Amino acid sequence: MTDDPVLRESSEPPAVGELTPPDRTLMGPGPSDVHPRVLRAMSTPLVGHLDPSFVEIMDEVQELLRYTFRTDNEWSIPVSGTGSAAMEAAIGNVVAPGDTMLVPTNGYFGGRMAEMARRAGGDVVEVDAPWGEPLDPADVEDALATHEPDVFGFVHAETSTGAKQIDVPALTEAAHDHGALVIADSVTSIGGVELRVDEWGIDVAYAGPQKCLSCPPGASPLTLNDRAMEKVRAREEPARSWYLDLSLLDDYWGDERAYHHTAPITNVYALREALRLVAEEGIESRWERHLEMAGALKAGMEAMGLGLNPADEYWLPSLNAVRVPDGVDDGAVISTLLEDYDIEIASGLGDLEGDIFRIGCMGYSARPENVIYVVNALGETLERLGAEVDAEAGRTATLDAL
Amino acid sequence: MTDDPVLRESSEPPAVGELTPPDRTLMGPGPSDVHPRVLRAMSTPLVGHLDPSFVEIMDEVQELLRYTFRTDNEWSIPVSGTGSAAMEAAIGNVVAPGDTMLVPTNGYFGGRMAEMARRAGGDVVEVDAPWGEPLDPADVEDALATHEPDVFGFVHAETSTGAKQIDVPALTEAAHDHGALVIADSVTSIGGVELRVDEWGIDVAYAGPQKCLSCPPGASPLTLNDRAMEKVRAREEPARSWYLDLSLLDDYWGDERAYHHTAPITNVYALREALRLVAEEGIESRWERHLEMAGALKAGMEAMGLGLNPADEYWLPSLNAVRVPDGVDDGAVISTLLEDYDIEIASGLGDLEGDIFRIGCMGYSARPENVIYVVNALGETLERLGAEVDAEAGRTATLDAL
Repeated sequence: MTDDPVLRESSEPPAVGELTPPDRTLMGPGPSDVHPRVLRAMSTPLVGHLDPSFVEIMDEVQELLRYTFRTDNEWSIPVSGTGSAAMEAAIGNVVAPGDTMLVPTNGYFGGRMAEMARRAGGDVVEVDAPWGEPLDPADVEDALATHEPDVFGFVHAETSTGAKQIDVPALTEAAHDHGALVIADSVTSIGGVELRVDEWGIDVAYAGPQKCLSCPPGASPLTLNDRAMEKVRAREEPARSWYLDLSLLDDYWGDERAYHHTAPITNVYALREALRLVAEEGIESRWERHLEMAGALKAGMEAMGLGLNPADEYWLPSLNAVRVPDGVDDGAVISTLLEDYDIEIASGLGDLEGDIFRIGCMGYSARPENVIYVVNALGETLERLGAEVDAEAGRTATLDAL
Repeated sequence: MTDDPVLRESSEPPAVGELTPPDRTLMGPGPSDVHPRVLRAMSTPLVGHLDPSFVEIMDEVQELLRYTFRTDNEWSIPVSGTGSAAMEAAIGNVVAPGDTMLVPTNGYFGGRMAEMARRAGGDVVEVDAPWGEPLDPADVEDALATHEPDVFGFVHAETSTGAKQIDVPALTEAAHDHGALVIADSVTSIGGVELRVDEWGIDVAYAGPQKCLSCPPGASPLTLNDRAMEKVRAREEPARSWYLDLSLLDDYWGDERAYHHTAPITNVYALREALRLVAEEGIESRWERHLEMAGALKAGMEAMGLGLNPADEYWLPSLNAVRVPDGVDDGAVISTLLEDYDIEIASGLGDLEGDIFRIGCMGYSARPENVIYVVNALGETLERLGAEVDAEAGRTATLDAL
């Protein structure tokens, strides 16, 4: 990137203008549109990360996280980083060197779980399902019996495939029968799709703020029950990351409130406001709203002549995997939507690359104005590019459903 | 924290009110007062982390980071976390299992370096100096000759002691003569205290945004030269953190701009604005301003009868370690300042606990209004608590110097 490194250092300050990003409608896999109240919270002047007033804010955020995760876990905190940091905090602390972790192969994020488990010093074993389908409890049971893993991870809402893991209690029960702790990736479900950490027997869940919580990334929800935290506290060898070591963070987020690292204060402000919005709406109403809005989106797609990739049974309302019609270049559609409509949607990943569009319906983006706008724009664009779709029928079906 | 876990999960949504933190004047070891333009940037609606417009913003931030670090390093990026994440990204990637890292013992953050190096699989050796003093180049030379380490880390601006490492080029030259890569902690110097990464022969430097850059924590500056990045890319075993693996981040921040993790978009916006303010002021003028403002603060302390802990030669303008007068309870002073004046300053840590106040003079907090306010408040408070200080003389000396 440096054309002339020798001159650069002594050169004049770079001329960088005012921040004026385009005004996008975010209907991709995240970030989603941020609620204006959350944006406003981010412009609040800071207090110190050890200020008594911040300690109060920490308590409130923890309480709101418990409500949103549907858990009583004392250990419910925002991790100081984006969703992958919360993911690594979960896996890197719960998986100790020599442990075996069972991970799914039915999407991109199971692969990331495997990668993180290996770096934590663990051995990885797999339970298979095709990309775009949930795990079958019988297959999980078999894999547990064969490998007797210490930890079992699954993805509740696969952002790469738009498939929802169903039968979660059957999976956790099987894992517990085999003595494994259960880690759930709930990045794309928290605050938008029914998720009941305690009732479903999930030991550890991590999430991202920039999906159904409509909060900018930077502080990411994590919850662990006592059984999981006991394992973390009893580790013989410390976690391999100091930054994400939950036994050290215990002193900051626990009763002591002792310095570990400087928390991302503004991101905690933002998450607090985003979670307040969840509490105001009510978590179950919020799940309902996502179902309704994504339902209208799905109805539009189907009326237009586009199919959704996952079966209805495990359709994920927050992330709609829409099949790309034959003969259409998905990249051309995505860039037209961005350039002509300022709409962000995304292409498929991995096994589904080129086969699906990924259209999010999350948080503040799960609103009638966003849904009809994207259905209309996608229909128009596909027609313009010569695909055999009925844009008008799509619009009508969505409007009828809204 | 949960009084009645069984009832909690089914209970009503928590009643959490509007975010109304107190209006503090931040004169502690960080965060410092955030510039209003940076706060405003944080309320900017988001674009996606792979949006072409965000890629442009990434380029601009990298360019501004090079200017601020005084480097031509292509590899100059914001790490997705707070300062400790940038620290662990530096150490965890550059130190491979079996490597030896030489760390200083003259403050809190040398200890943290050691901890991170061990977790990276490295062996740690030490070079000693008392807390509050810089390393002596002769001692560093001896330690290098004795241990022949692979990596040498030092702290340019020790936030725990208020001492500045002087003679940096002598340290880096010695390290290079012994084949060691040099990592500099510049958390409390970047943008406020003279720091010249390339000219001084520093191979890797990490920093925090919430000190002299007056930016909320959440995206943290890191720079590595080609030699350091070559070592990172040639590692046999991947870094132990997936989230902070620089060889993977290469694809996102390098030419490819491929997805690794969702960047903390808003924090990148904020850092961009904070660095624009550096470029507008000019880096050398900014160092000068910090010297002048902290000089007025120091003059006030000395005229009041308070001594600074470090000798003038290695006094750190951004973090003033002021000796607590005999018979005064530092905790009482600090809480009076917070409660009666809304001012945050901090106590000493580790070897200096109870011995010093730590008074920051950083970024947007390095202004005449902040400096006279804290000098006046500290003088009044100490007099009120019965310390033998001359508050009036302190005020006058500071006003004269401003």
